[in-house]
Amino acid sequence: MSNMAPTEGLDGRKIVYDEDGKPCRSCNTLLDFKFATGKITSKMNSPIQTPTESKDNAMPMIPGHKTHAKVDPPDVEKLGRSSWDLLHSITARYPVKPTEQNKSEMKQFLTLFSHVYPCSWCARDFEKFIAKHAPKVNSRDELGRWMCEAHNEVNAKLMKEQFDCNLWDKRWKDGWDE
Amino acid sequence: MSNMAPTEGLDGRKIVYDEDGKPCRSCNTLLDFKFATGKITSKMNSPIQTPTESKDNAMPMIPGHKTHAKVDPPDVEKLGRSSWDLLHSITARYPVKPTEQNKSEMKQFLTLFSHVYPCSWCARDFEKFIAKHAPKVNSRDELGRWMCEAHNEVNAKLMKEQFDCNLWDKRWKDGWDE
Repeated sequence: MSNMAPTEGLDGRKIVYDEDGKPCRSCNTLLDFKFATGKITSKMNSPIQTPTESKDNAMPMIPGHKTHAKVDPPDVEKLGRSSWDLLHSITARYPVKPTEQNKSEMKQFLTLFSHVYPCSWCARDFEKFIAKHAPKVNSRDELGRWMCEAHNEVNAKLMKEQFDCNLWDKRWKDGWDE
Repeated sequence: MSNMAPTEGLDGRKIVYDEDGKPCRSCNTLLDFKFATGKITSKMNSPIQTPTESKDNAMPMIPGHKTHAKVDPPDVEKLGRSSWDLLHSITARYPVKPTEQNKSEMKQFLTLFSHVYPCSWCARDFEKFIAKHAPKVNSRDELGRWMCEAHNEVNAKLMKEQFDCNLWDKRWKDGWDE
């Protein structure tokens, strides 16, 4: 890691570097990633563009492509939202009465998820959560609540509001309008 | 399944039902899900609200919550975007020189992913892709390109433009601005 590399980002968070000394995209916010790579020096001089799918059309296209825009890789926050979308949706479709194979595969999947997740410190936190609170895989409701509690542990770390896990199925399975 | 349940959605896509006869949220678009549940009868009479994080504040809050809005579970399209975000980011952080354990865990992870993915027909398609094209896990670049090709197979099915896989690392690892 270069001696010039900042250890702290613009919001006071520690900047995470890869083994090769480069700042990790999936472990930092885009703001801090750009700060660590010297693209910006303060919050003021470069508002971060956070493209949504609907805005992509207004972004420059990738050379040789008509519909693929120059979207940057997801930062730690976008990756987090995307991954919770997936993980909770997985619990919403987990069998109500799982077979032994379903149970064993789900436990393996969650363990492997904690090994391959791109944000290294998030991955370690999830691994620790699993070690302390073994995944509850005996029914859809059990797994849905377990995942909600895993998410709440992260909410607590990020000083976000706790979610009422009695409502997990409305948020991730049934919706609010019925 | 009720005899009244439509077999085709408002865009002409087949509507996917769960074993219990209810339409599957993660397998249909929100439009078709609402059509199949009788909430709307045409594209005209109920514009679908597609909340983004920035708009959440304008949405009604969940009772008892200050910051959690009444966001509906992701439909098949949002789930797809979220999952590609995660899968490509995983390849971008896969070791350049993986150990035998890295390789074996990644192969297992991808197989289990194809078993637990919430959209059943998407999951089957991914499983078939893996069966035909074994995951290439000998290096980060190999895996990044393999995932890009898996995504392109889905792009082809959805009549979307093919992505130039020589650019996979710019889109999912390094970004475009450097």
